[in-house]
Amino acid sequence: MSGQERVQLPAGFRASGVTAGLKASGTPDLALVVNDGPDHHAGAVFTTNRVEAAPVTWSRQVVADGRVDAVVLNSGGANACTGTQGFLDTHRTAEHVAEVLGVSAGDVVVCSTGLIGELLPMDRIISGVDAAAAALSIEGHEAAAVAIKTTDTVHKVARHAGAGWSVSGMAKGAGMLAPALATMLVVLTTDAVVDQTDLDAALRAATDVSFDRIDSDACMSTNDTVAVLASGASGVAVDRGALTEALTAVCTDLARQLIADAEGAAHDIAIEVAGAASVDDALEVARAVARNNLFKCAIFGNDPNWGRVLAAVGTTRAAFDPAALDVTMNGVQVCRSGGVGEDRTLVDLTSREVHVRVDLHAGPESATVWTNDLTHDYVHENSAYST
Amino acid sequence: MSGQERVQLPAGFRASGVTAGLKASGTPDLALVVNDGPDHHAGAVFTTNRVEAAPVTWSRQVVADGRVDAVVLNSGGANACTGTQGFLDTHRTAEHVAEVLGVSAGDVVVCSTGLIGELLPMDRIISGVDAAAAALSIEGHEAAAVAIKTTDTVHKVARHAGAGWSVSGMAKGAGMLAPALATMLVVLTTDAVVDQTDLDAALRAATDVSFDRIDSDACMSTNDTVAVLASGASGVAVDRGALTEALTAVCTDLARQLIADAEGAAHDIAIEVAGAASVDDALEVARAVARNNLFKCAIFGNDPNWGRVLAAVGTTRAAFDPAALDVTMNGVQVCRSGGVGEDRTLVDLTSREVHVRVDLHAGPESATVWTNDLTHDYVHENSAYST
Repeated sequence: MSGQERVQLPAGFRASGVTAGLKASGTPDLALVVNDGPDHHAGAVFTTNRVEAAPVTWSRQVVADGRVDAVVLNSGGANACTGTQGFLDTHRTAEHVAEVLGVSAGDVVVCSTGLIGELLPMDRIISGVDAAAAALSIEGHEAAAVAIKTTDTVHKVARHAGAGWSVSGMAKGAGMLAPALATMLVVLTTDAVVDQTDLDAALRAATDVSFDRIDSDACMSTNDTVAVLASGASGVAVDRGALTEALTAVCTDLARQLIADAEGAAHDIAIEVAGAASVDDALEVARAVARNNLFKCAIFGNDPNWGRVLAAVGTTRAAFDPAALDVTMNGVQVCRSGGVGEDRTLVDLTSREVHVRVDLHAGPESATVWTNDLTHDYVHENSAYST
Repeated sequence: MSGQERVQLPAGFRASGVTAGLKASGTPDLALVVNDGPDHHAGAVFTTNRVEAAPVTWSRQVVADGRVDAVVLNSGGANACTGTQGFLDTHRTAEHVAEVLGVSAGDVVVCSTGLIGELLPMDRIISGVDAAAAALSIEGHEAAAVAIKTTDTVHKVARHAGAGWSVSGMAKGAGMLAPALATMLVVLTTDAVVDQTDLDAALRAATDVSFDRIDSDACMSTNDTVAVLASGASGVAVDRGALTEALTAVCTDLARQLIADAEGAAHDIAIEVAGAASVDDALEVARAVARNNLFKCAIFGNDPNWGRVLAAVGTTRAAFDPAALDVTMNGVQVCRSGGVGEDRTLVDLTSREVHVRVDLHAGPESATVWTNDLTHDYVHENSAYST
């Protein structure tokens, strides 16, 4: 399942994407996703950044009761660090969506992405909501996915089909819930008949092993949101296990797409840590490697500099003996027992996908974190973003 | 005090720097610093990386008894992740220095810097030690400082003069003890008559507010070492307070020189955090900003993107109210009370030195961490290091 093929909405949903005029590029920048029911179950997870954007503060309240009727998303402005006026603007956006759709503002999730520290042009948001409402369609999933793009080069969608029910998803950005490169926004929709508690638990389980295990540049956004909406329109009851499996499949697919489209990246790097005493240890080590700028530069240069992997592993509190560490890069064991292994010149790093395996020899657990290399294009894109 | 002027050794010391043939460039790569006494007091601090190089493991033992007669340093190879053979090589280096100088190997500190994961060419080390011993001179401080350079574009020395006594220092690298960009090696020498316990305490106090407060790229080295040697040759007794002041002055000067010469950097950035409930809070916030790649790219682009500062602050556990945060960049308060402040276009970031001030409005404490921007040259230098 990839962004190349069209992904339709599950039964019970309509969506749209329009050009509200928020982005200087003149490309689509406002999306609407509406759940027509019969169920309106929902759940969401948000950034853990304490400096959170107004739409995050608003949407936390909206999802608290487990009901969501619509999600409105805009690119072209994050509405973060915008004070009281920013929150009033989010509130007004939700009120207007509610009015146009005939629902309650308290059931409208708002997501924004773009530059921090600037107020949104509310006249354009309001007219954009009107246009988006008029454009709502059961065919609208792709258009909505396109409208939430910022620096994304492609829109990201994914789908998992069950027997008579399905889950669809759209995503923008590249990173993870905490941290994240730019803002990650995800809307998941399903027509399964589910218990709201199961939906929330399944979402948390799915994001824990997907979006929480990608780490493009260790920077945590103020706006990250992953929302799931369930319409029940398929009439097929689905239990927590099957739902978790489906959401995990869609989230993993979208997470992989985010890494593949990360700003300026030239390599997608899987850091697999095996032989860990615990999954937490494996994740701590994998993240330490994933966030090491020297390692990330080396991969950009197709340089199998395994010493930088060990130096990163050494900064963690995970259980291991430095003299027992093994590192394998694209199948070549360049480091054995903490020292020199096979000839590093045997490693071919020219492919987009790179696999680094660290064996801690300290237990039975493992985990994989995906990251990107650090490139000239990353520096270029991020040194010229707001100017 | 800067690297431009010549810094001499305090009384009681000799030093040298020679070309042992370790570096392909053919530039000096082996240095020796000898304490001729009458005192041989010493102290040292090392990287906290659990994957530590053989010379660090060795030197920890050497300084444990508070006596050091000589320090031998090589560039052109870190001797890290080199297993048992690497440790034997460090031991053999110390033994040879001891033999040539007529001291005990257990009083010889060894420091190495360069690529991780390769064994040192011991024949060249041994003949280099012979040459360095033959070249020892009371005029040798500058030559030794030059021989420990790796990617440094200039050698770094500093001096603080007391009444009848002094402290001199040499440094290579750019970063901090934990973490560090490449390896940081520092040798401090003083002819003051000091108590060994005072010397150790003064060193820890000095590095705590100097090398521990620079953070070029958040990467911790396997080899970082800061050693101090006291000869007592001035005959002037100095108490802990005056010694701490002198060591702090020299370490702060050297730390600032390291940041100014960090790999590929275009800006030196002081992150001052004020209004903190504790110094630890101030440091946590300052480090979070200093390590944020998006912020560092923005400064490279002369872009006063204060939203990235707030997003970094929001990842910390420090005490603050997001709605009370102020951010000033080069004198312009671009963020006031967590929202938009003065016009960001008023900020001029074209100077090498940039000052970012974050006021947490949560207490009376403050701290400053120095870092660098993230540039094309950083990516270039670090993507082509070992190949």
